[in-house]
Amino acid sequence: MSLLYKNLRIHQVFGANTDVGKTVLTSALVRASAAAGHSVYYLKPVSTGPMSDADDDPTLSGTTQLDAYRPLFLPTVLIGDSRLGGISSTIASYEAMLIRGYIVDAVLLFRDEYYRNWEYLAPYFAERGIPVTSIQPPPEREADPSADASLTEHYYQNIVPDTGDSTIFDVVKHLDTCHTRRLEELDGMPRRTLDSIWWPFVQHGHVKTEADVNVIDSAWGDFFSVYNGKRPTASSKTSIVEPQLDGSASWWTQAIGHAHPALALAAARAAGRYGHVMFPEATHLPALKLAERLVHAGPGRGWAARAFFSDDGSTGMEVAIKMALRAYATRAAGALGGGRRKDLGILGLKGSYHGDTIGAMDACEEGVYTCEWHDAKGYWFDPPTVSIREGKTVVSLPPAIAAETGDGKADVETVSLSWTYNIEERLQSPLTDIYRGYIERTLQKLKDGNGPQIAALVLEPLVMGAGGMLFVDPLFQRVLIDAVRSLDGAPSSAPSEWSGLPVIFDEVFIGLYRLGLRSSTALLGTTPDISVNAKILTGGLVPLAVTLASDSVYRAFLSDSKVDALLHGHSYTAYPVGCEVANETLDIVEKLAASPAWTAAREKWKVPEPENANEKAVWSFWDPEFVHVVSKMDRVAEVMAFGTVLSIKIRDDSAGYESHSARALLKSIKTAAESDALSPAPGGSPFGIHYRTLGNVAYFMLSLNTPASIVRDIEERVWTVLQNRT
Amino acid sequence: MSLLYKNLRIHQVFGANTDVGKTVLTSALVRASAAAGHSVYYLKPVSTGPMSDADDDPTLSGTTQLDAYRPLFLPTVLIGDSRLGGISSTIASYEAMLIRGYIVDAVLLFRDEYYRNWEYLAPYFAERGIPVTSIQPPPEREADPSADASLTEHYYQNIVPDTGDSTIFDVVKHLDTCHTRRLEELDGMPRRTLDSIWWPFVQHGHVKTEADVNVIDSAWGDFFSVYNGKRPTASSKTSIVEPQLDGSASWWTQAIGHAHPALALAAARAAGRYGHVMFPEATHLPALKLAERLVHAGPGRGWAARAFFSDDGSTGMEVAIKMALRAYATRAAGALGGGRRKDLGILGLKGSYHGDTIGAMDACEEGVYTCEWHDAKGYWFDPPTVSIREGKTVVSLPPAIAAETGDGKADVETVSLSWTYNIEERLQSPLTDIYRGYIERTLQKLKDGNGPQIAALVLEPLVMGAGGMLFVDPLFQRVLIDAVRSLDGAPSSAPSEWSGLPVIFDEVFIGLYRLGLRSSTALLGTTPDISVNAKILTGGLVPLAVTLASDSVYRAFLSDSKVDALLHGHSYTAYPVGCEVANETLDIVEKLAASPAWTAAREKWKVPEPENANEKAVWSFWDPEFVHVVSKMDRVAEVMAFGTVLSIKIRDDSAGYESHSARALLKSIKTAAESDALSPAPGGSPFGIHYRTLGNVAYFMLSLNTPASIVRDIEERVWTVLQNRT
Repeated sequence: MSLLYKNLRIHQVFGANTDVGKTVLTSALVRASAAAGHSVYYLKPVSTGPMSDADDDPTLSGTTQLDAYRPLFLPTVLIGDSRLGGISSTIASYEAMLIRGYIVDAVLLFRDEYYRNWEYLAPYFAERGIPVTSIQPPPEREADPSADASLTEHYYQNIVPDTGDSTIFDVVKHLDTCHTRRLEELDGMPRRTLDSIWWPFVQHGHVKTEADVNVIDSAWGDFFSVYNGKRPTASSKTSIVEPQLDGSASWWTQAIGHAHPALALAAARAAGRYGHVMFPEATHLPALKLAERLVHAGPGRGWAARAFFSDDGSTGMEVAIKMALRAYATRAAGALGGGRRKDLGILGLKGSYHGDTIGAMDACEEGVYTCEWHDAKGYWFDPPTVSIREGKTVVSLPPAIAAETGDGKADVETVSLSWTYNIEERLQSPLTDIYRGYIERTLQKLKDGNGPQIAALVLEPLVMGAGGMLFVDPLFQRVLIDAVRSLDGAPSSAPSEWSGLPVIFDEVFIGLYRLGLRSSTALLGTTPDISVNAKILTGGLVPLAVTLASDSVYRAFLSDSKVDALLHGHSYTAYPVGCEVANETLDIVEKLAASPAWTAAREKWKVPEPENANEKAVWSFWDPEFVHVVSKMDRVAEVMAFGTVLSIKIRDDSAGYESHSARALLKSIKTAAESDALSPAPGGSPFGIHYRTLGNVAYFMLSLNTPASIVRDIEERVWTVLQNRT
Repeated sequence: MSLLYKNLRIHQVFGANTDVGKTVLTSALVRASAAAGHSVYYLKPVSTGPMSDADDDPTLSGTTQLDAYRPLFLPTVLIGDSRLGGISSTIASYEAMLIRGYIVDAVLLFRDEYYRNWEYLAPYFAERGIPVTSIQPPPEREADPSADASLTEHYYQNIVPDTGDSTIFDVVKHLDTCHTRRLEELDGMPRRTLDSIWWPFVQHGHVKTEADVNVIDSAWGDFFSVYNGKRPTASSKTSIVEPQLDGSASWWTQAIGHAHPALALAAARAAGRYGHVMFPEATHLPALKLAERLVHAGPGRGWAARAFFSDDGSTGMEVAIKMALRAYATRAAGALGGGRRKDLGILGLKGSYHGDTIGAMDACEEGVYTCEWHDAKGYWFDPPTVSIREGKTVVSLPPAIAAETGDGKADVETVSLSWTYNIEERLQSPLTDIYRGYIERTLQKLKDGNGPQIAALVLEPLVMGAGGMLFVDPLFQRVLIDAVRSLDGAPSSAPSEWSGLPVIFDEVFIGLYRLGLRSSTALLGTTPDISVNAKILTGGLVPLAVTLASDSVYRAFLSDSKVDALLHGHSYTAYPVGCEVANETLDIVEKLAASPAWTAAREKWKVPEPENANEKAVWSFWDPEFVHVVSKMDRVAEVMAFGTVLSIKIRDDSAGYESHSARALLKSIKTAAESDALSPAPGGSPFGIHYRTLGNVAYFMLSLNTPASIVRDIEERVWTVLQNRT
């Protein structure tokens, strides 16, 4: 993991090629540093070439050194190539380093008077803020060892003279300055941030000190490198950047960890080929391929006809809502009359969240996420939820539904978690009729009442994330969808034709394997008319959303008049960089979904390996035994694990968004972790935890490739803290 | 410009380094192709090394060949490096090619039996869909020329045998297949697009044939490369991709042209260092630097305190509106009462457009851009506009204002264009009092009426783009701002304290030098309380928006309660890739703004070169003489040029969004251009034009670095078509 010390400057030296003088110029830097009075340590972890020439011990295999050392995030010196072709190889090496996030502080190369590469490279790198220094090359080797040693010593004394007066000393001074500047920059960032940034969702009135600012110096895989120099425990002997687990997968966007080189290169590739393409009446391969795979092979399989691109989950939902309302209004035009189009409302669930633009907000009840123009339009059912409590799977009914059961009990214990998510079996259970009766009576009341004309059903399938990680009973969602589709009589048998009301699935959070499932459709045993994907779609690199629609929804906008079109768009709609990154992410994710790691996780949950294991099985990367044990702990009200998600509801009388109990819990995990990170136990894997909470719900979110060892480590920490009653 | 022929396959060969066998392996490919019965042409444009070894004529200087040939967009063969260090240099070369958008179809390298680089490279490239072929290396050179020639010939006969049975023939077949596949892919893209894509703002009912789909194969600078193989005029002798000018700067996003390598590398750099960072209570350098430069040095200079990030102009405006409404509601809490918060309205101008999410739409009048939930909240003034007609600068007054002038005339001729944009002088002119009187009476009527409580002023300064390139009289906007600020008495003298109503500048379209000005503030002689930038901010690469706010707006959200915070955010808020690309764009743009090209353009408009030339001067990249001449043409109602924007309003009785007259005009430019592109005149610069229109307004938008020769060329085409009355 990333290393940075106050009193120890570390630079890593890379060569633009072999035989460019890495060893000689590094030796010169070491000599100059020593001559300037520093203690110098020199480590050569790998050498290429025949074993007889090797001056190192360890070896790496199967990955380039540039990738292998990247987690250390050491600032670098690049030894350029002074030979014929060396301009290109030096620049290409520099770019390869940048793509992997390296900081390049200086370029050194031999002063070859014939090719004079430094003359081209110096202004080239100066434009990029990097000094290029050319150093006299060493003499030819002498056959006689002692003559060679004396000649070499003479050479070094020449380029690193005792007077301390040569360019190599300037390089050492420059590297010292880079180090000092980096420390100062990190140290100044909290203050500067508090002076210029307005954070999303943050009450700045709660941010009291610079220590409240999480300074992210870099990231790699599941970890951030975070500056800790402002912390009271910081010492000059420990690294002032430390690893912090990205425990919420960066707002649920990460698919394959941070800074994945394949995604960086995908972004650059599309940027280099296209830049941007204005999308109306145009096409380009990244967008076309992404549309096709989502429509035909991905979440749209079997029902979707078209993909509409936008920038984030919220805009994707605005598009979905515009589609649904138009489809409904067109079909119901006679009954509605023009003036009532504005009064259309949606049907949803309490706890829903679809984003923060006003249209997406208006599809949700008013709650804590509200603002002046938020004007909730519709009706929201209080849904039953699924959780694991004291080792048992429980469906919790809201009072209105509990009242309709024989015994009036709010909590119904089910056979098992897997049975609870087996919709076809549960459709035969008594709860189905109770749900259906309740829903149909409610819909009738809405029809008879004075509320808005309900025009669409909008659901987050399986889990309402922002609403507090509520695992909605999937049977309730299925029965609700069926009931809505039967509003005008028997529903259409073609999944491309909407019936009753258009149904929108907001899969921004749960889609594309966040729950280990490609989509919720197979598990629910039904398909939507419109769906939205975002977040994980682009693997946590850049924003992009796709709204999928069935043919019948699309046809509602077809006419001879431009004003009937879906007049929605953003400047960067379907931008090639976003689409290419999404394609690369999905390529990698689909390989992961077929990997032994996933099979192993499913086996723990006793999920057989059927063909459609990624379609409808309920399983998790979290250990079932851990989940079982935690569900029985005193401080825990309930727990759920599904795919990458672990959700722990803490017992707390003041539940809700404003509760701080989960935060307090995680803070103790974090504090314990931080002391670990500062003085790691041998063999341990020390890290801090960058966490998020929703009221009294603590949750952890993994990437789709988080190593099992890290998952086990988090489980251990969570269990330890939950054990501790203070 | 990009080349692709049906019956002529062209591959460009790049070497991973010098001396890796480019010439030998290319010769082998040429021989194998010839042996397979193809006519083969071989061009070596540049060689490195001493002049005595040179086997070429032309030379390039100052740029790498990889950059120099990129506009041709030829598919490539990479000759890998078989020597020690060759694995790294081959991969780094491959990545350097990808960053610049190149398609790499095959990798060839010598079969060095000692280092065996192909053993690592073959699976590495196979994962990336590229076959690696290793070929026996040539023999050592013989001193005797005739012996050497015979040995060389023997070598070639060995690797390219007459039997046609060797791996090199497989490579040729593979390259043929790549070519065929690319042609088939381009040919199939229109159909596939029509079957899976739902375009923004497009009435799909109008899209009749595959020829209506603009297939973008790549882009470079100001040009797209567009597939024309579906066109009736396509011939096997001409390239089936052709250059098309991106005449609308890709929805006004382009700053420095398409596929700029610096932006591609900036995206990759931030991706490689961070991936994404969840932003609440966190910070990272790209976001912090961007916030600081926008707040302190950019459009926020002198008034802004904070930057809030979001994903596009529409979300940026939703944030701005939420800020303004809360600031107003907090101050007016006593007068409003809780219930009235939803009824707050905004003050704006007819023709405004702020994006397509519902909140942004609700800040605009209902017009053609509408949908079911659009519920316009506020009052919109019909504004006076500026244009050039028959060689004269005219301010056109709406009827209500014209009625208040002495003579009742709608059109007021002004001294000059530069005088019209000199607000300080014009504040002394009679129109100021007329505007002020009209505005103050209207505001009083609104106060007395039953409409919504006006809570904010929302303006697109200087130009309303989507509304039809309406150049609003800047004096009217200034007087309106002053009037609104005096609503509660004398306005605050501190620009960080809002008075009367919070004022929002939507600078998404006009900001950051689109009009040659950093911002509209200096020209208008006033500052907003909130402003939004997007589009050009990221140079046409990735979506990003920033909402700037003054300290008094920010303070309205400060409290001890989380629910009072600005509860708005998107998953990718302030994502490092977007911020880094924005920083790189602004670095380049700021250099351009100080460049001789800009000085030259300003000189034509007789703008002296004061210190603040990029702050308040009205000038354009379009030639003033051209603008003058066009303004006098029969078919032209009016014209305006400002910065990169040229807007020509066509005389048309059926004006408005549904008018097709501008489209018809531009179609004739396009048709003429297409025939040019297919049979270019010697010395001409043939290209098609990818255009957009707004009703009867034809507009052209340049990048900030479009060469003057291209601008002159467009002017020539526009003038020619306008001359032609048919």
